[in-house]
Order: sequence, then C-alpha cells, then structure tokens
Amino acid sequence: MENQQNKALKERPAPSQVSRAGVLGTGTIGGAWALHFLRMGMDVVAYDPGPNAKQNLLAMVEAIWPTMKELGLREGASPRRLSFVSSLAELVENVQVIQENTPENLMAKRKLFAGLDTITPAEVVIISSTSGFVMTDMQVDCQYHPERFVVGHPFNPPYLIPFCEVVGGKQTIPAVVDWTVAFYESIEKQVAKMDKELPGFIGNRLQEALWREALHMVANNECSVEDIDKSIAYGMGLRWAIMGHCLTYHLGGGQGGMAHLLDHFAPALKEPWTRLEAPELTPELRNAMVQGCLNQTEGRSIDELVKERDDCLIRIINSLKEYKTLHGIKR
Amino acid sequence: MENQQNKALKERPAPSQVSRAGVLGTGTIGGAWALHFLRMGMDVVAYDPGPNAKQNLLAMVEAIWPTMKELGLREGASPRRLSFVSSLAELVENVQVIQENTPENLMAKRKLFAGLDTITPAEVVIISSTSGFVMTDMQVDCQYHPERFVVGHPFNPPYLIPFCEVVGGKQTIPAVVDWTVAFYESIEKQVAKMDKELPGFIGNRLQEALWREALHMVANNECSVEDIDKSIAYGMGLRWAIMGHCLTYHLGGGQGGMAHLLDHFAPALKEPWTRLEAPELTPELRNAMVQGCLNQTEGRSIDELVKERDDCLIRIINSLKEYKTLHGIKR
Repeated sequence: MENQQNKALKERPAPSQVSRAGVLGTGTIGGAWALHFLRMGMDVVAYDPGPNAKQNLLAMVEAIWPTMKELGLREGASPRRLSFVSSLAELVENVQVIQENTPENLMAKRKLFAGLDTITPAEVVIISSTSGFVMTDMQVDCQYHPERFVVGHPFNPPYLIPFCEVVGGKQTIPAVVDWTVAFYESIEKQVAKMDKELPGFIGNRLQEALWREALHMVANNECSVEDIDKSIAYGMGLRWAIMGHCLTYHLGGGQGGMAHLLDHFAPALKEPWTRLEAPELTPELRNAMVQGCLNQTEGRSIDELVKERDDCLIRIINSLKEYKTLHGIKR
Repeated sequence: MENQQNKALKERPAPSQVSRAGVLGTGTIGGAWALHFLRMGMDVVAYDPGPNAKQNLLAMVEAIWPTMKELGLREGASPRRLSFVSSLAELVENVQVIQENTPENLMAKRKLFAGLDTITPAEVVIISSTSGFVMTDMQVDCQYHPERFVVGHPFNPPYLIPFCEVVGGKQTIPAVVDWTVAFYESIEKQVAKMDKELPGFIGNRLQEALWREALHMVANNECSVEDIDKSIAYGMGLRWAIMGHCLTYHLGGGQGGMAHLLDHFAPALKEPWTRLEAPELTPELRNAMVQGCLNQTEGRSIDELVKERDDCLIRIINSLKEYKTLHGIKR
C-alpha cells in the first residue's frame, strides 16, 4: 500500500461540487447510499469484498431505479454511472468522498479506518454510516489524517428517508463536520449537526425509548403488538410524518402553543404514563422547548399550522387509503 | 331530575345502527367528535354549559366541514343535522350514545357521571374521551348503571386520526366494551380494545416515552428541539405513517424479520441509547413480538412489505413536497 502521508494535501472540492462518491460496503445501507448518489447525478465507485457483492448491488440498483425515477432524477443521473471495483486501493484513488457501510464491529472498523487512512488521499472525507459507535472510538488507530473521519448516520432506506445525523470524534476537525453537513444538504438530505457524541445519536434514542416502552407493555401482557402498531400507524405516526413531536405538541397547546402546554401539563410529567422518568421542567428547559418550536414556525400562527397539519393529514390518509384499496391490503 | 332506575331497560341499538349521537362538552375534542359523527351521517345533539359554546361549535363545524367533504361524506351527512341543546336533560333524552369530553378533572367527572347515570336511559352507553383517568376511578359514584360507562380515548384531531383506545372499568360489563368497539369500527375508527386499565393507555405511553427522552436531551444540551423534530418528520415519522414501529423493525430485520432482529440486536437493549431500561428479552417476549408482526403481514413476504413501504413513502414524500412548494413552506 502506498502511504499518503508525504503527498501534498490537495484541495477538497466544494461540498456541492462533489461528482464522484465512493461507497465502501454494499449491503442494504451501502447499496441505498449508492442509489441516492446515483440519483443525485454522481459517479459512484463501489467496493465490497463479500461473495456476490457486485451482483447483489447491481440487482438492487436495477430493482430500485424505477423508485428513484419516481422521486425525480438530477440531470445526468444514470445507473450506468456505477462502477464496482475489485480493491480498496482502486476505490480510494478514484473518489472525492467515501461513505463507509461495513458491519457494526468496533474492532473491525478501527482496523479498517487505520488502513483507509494510510491509503486514502488526505483531502478525501471519510463518512461512516455507523448507527452504534462514536467516531472518537473508531478513529483511534488512524495515524495520518484522523481529522477527516466523521459519522454520517442515515435512516433506512437512505435512498428515501432524508434525515441524517452528522457528528465528529475528538480528532475530527470542525471544517470536516461542516463540509459533510453541506455535502449532505447539497444532495437533499435533512441534517442534524451534533456537537456531542451521544450514544444512539438523536433519532435512535427517541425510537429506542418508544421501542423499550413497547417491549415492556408486551412483556407485561398490557397490550398486543398489533395494537402498538395500530396506535402508531393510525394514530401518532400520521401526524409525525408532517411535523415532529415537539411542533405537534405546540399545536396541542391551542393558541398558547408549547408554552401553554408545558405550563398546563407539567404535572403530567410525574404521571406513570411510561416507565421513563422525566427530567425536572426547569424554566430553562421550558424556554428552550418553547423557543425551539417558535423557531420552526417561521412566523405562522397556530391556526395556520393546524390548517397545514390537517391539509397534509388528508393527503396522507387519502393517498394511503387509495394505495391499500388498489392492492387489496386490509390492515 | 327524573330517575331512570325504575324504567324498563330498552334494547340498545346495534352498534352499526346508531343514528343519533350525543356530544357532551364541545371544546377541541368534543367539537371534533361532533364533526366525525356528522360526517358519518348521524344526527348530533351537543351540549356544553360554557360561555359562547354554541357559537364556537358552529364556527368550528363551518370551518372544518370542507375538510370533512374532502375525506368523503357518508350518505345523508350534513352539518345541518347538528343541534345544540340547552340542558343535560335534553341531551340525554334524545340520543343513543354519549361521547363525553369535559375538562380533565377527576372529581368533576365523578360527580358528572353520577348525575348522568341518574338521568340517562339505562341502555345508552356513555363513552369518556378522557386521556388521563381510568373508568374504575370515574364510575365509583354511579348508583344505577355504572356498567354502561366506558373509556373511548381518541387522538387529536379525532375528525382525522382514526385510532381510539377502548377500555372499561371494574364495573363496566364486557358487552358494553364490545358494543363500543363495534360502534367505533362501524364509523371508520381503528380501535385497540384493552383488557387492562393502564395509565396512559397505549398510544400516550409510547409517545410519552419518546417525549421524555426528548426533554432529557434538550435539558442536557445534547441536541436542539429543531433537530428532534427533524429526526421525526424527515426520519422515523415518514415510516410510522405507513406501518407501526414493530412492523417497521420486522422489515429492518431483512428476510429474517423480527425474529432475526431480536436475536441479532438483543445486546443493543443494554446499550445506553435511551434513559429507559429495557425489559429482559425472554423467549416468551421474543415470540410474542415475532408472532405479533407475522399476524399483521397477512402472508405478505418481506420483499412485498418493503415494496409497499417504499411505494407509500414516495407517495407521502412527493405529496408533502408538493404541498410545501405550493404554500412556500421552507421547513
């Protein structure tokens, strides 16, 4: 392997100018990233040492390309711009950014990243799709340019779900975190940039809390799995596709919004409505929740937001009903 | 007040034959129930002693009726079939079922229910929209027919969100619970029938767990309110409108479904990915989760479910994008 440490650091492309992305590991998540990059009009270079990896990836791209067309292709986008190479060295020499999607094994990632660091040009940002590990723990054995390693955690399937979490490790420099956020935003991702390495990041913490409460309820024979899913798909989930939980509650507070809701329902935080104890509702927390909601409203009134929620709910409900009728789905 | 105890018990109408519903308390929730009953082609008799209650209800019905038309009206449905009466006695004498939506105050509800019980014909089922109390605690002062009181908890706004939880108290008879489930299902509600009185029921327990984890994160400066909402509205929430969390994870387990997911990710339940500790993953719990997912698939394969999820995701994403573009919404 050629060592990159003595090469001059080339300029990193502007985030919106990336035209050649590398995908390392081409399973469910890696394949989905390849599809998204292709849809955004890029060349994609993929590598995975697994058996049948190339055939599997090509089959996945062929199967899902019609979905990409339905979502809308950027100019020049084509599945023919995907190439599958036969070594890591070939991958790293031909791309401007790498999205890593290898199995969740900390020791394996540490070793992989140390090797990647040795052979990948220093200006190439290396983004890990990990959902379980923080970058600080993964970049420890990188000897040359640990500062260009960053976590970019997607949600399944990444070719459809826009949300990603971006967070660096102790050795990652802020410029790389910012570059990654800008890169993702330039390819239609909705990004949360995190300042702290939090186990589970944001989205998985929220859904893990819900998931564990669900497991407790089933374990105690308090309700069925089917009723849990019904409460989501025909209840809160319909609203959550439109606005997040906080903004939904902002509307639930009537004309007084989140401020009214918190002031009025603060005692409910002590109720045994979940096994998770709530934090103390300090004035600071109250104000942060209120301000965070107001920041999202862009000046729209509660009435305008209610109208938006209801209009969108009807679209979703009617669209899903039509689909289910068309396909004879009873659930 | 006339006492109903000595009158002969008339026959209760078949759940699907109810044509005249009473709405007691006509705020946000009561008004929404009135709209839903009207849309389902019923006569609605409403009562609320509050100032301007009648005008407010009429204004709400007028404002939201176009939405009801968009969702689709049952034959004969009309906002003109709403009447607002001036006393509780007038309400109870003219309806086949009562949906109660008064403020959340246990002592007030106890007193109200005792009075209602005295004057309401014995065959009339009285359903409480309470989100906080269990029926056992509310029906204690009913002297004549506590067996016809039951909780029917909706989600906001009940004229759009189909999910409801139905659960009786210690004195409620199973026939009344079953009647209420059948009544709701006959008016296009998706119902979870609960055997146990669980604080927070099902849906609110799940969203309360998520909400408390969110509050902890903001309290600890781990992330912003905006990023929490982004993770939902552009992440998990898009999937949750289509299928519940358990079935979503069933797909996340690949061809092995929920069984593979639980067997493979069991150690993750010990990770500090939320402040809520998970229950022990016993073989019984594992099998209950797996079977609950399989019950929902109606024999469809993982591949078919993935296609369904993706097709529906595209519909939702494109529909919401179109709406936002049309209305100049940036968020």
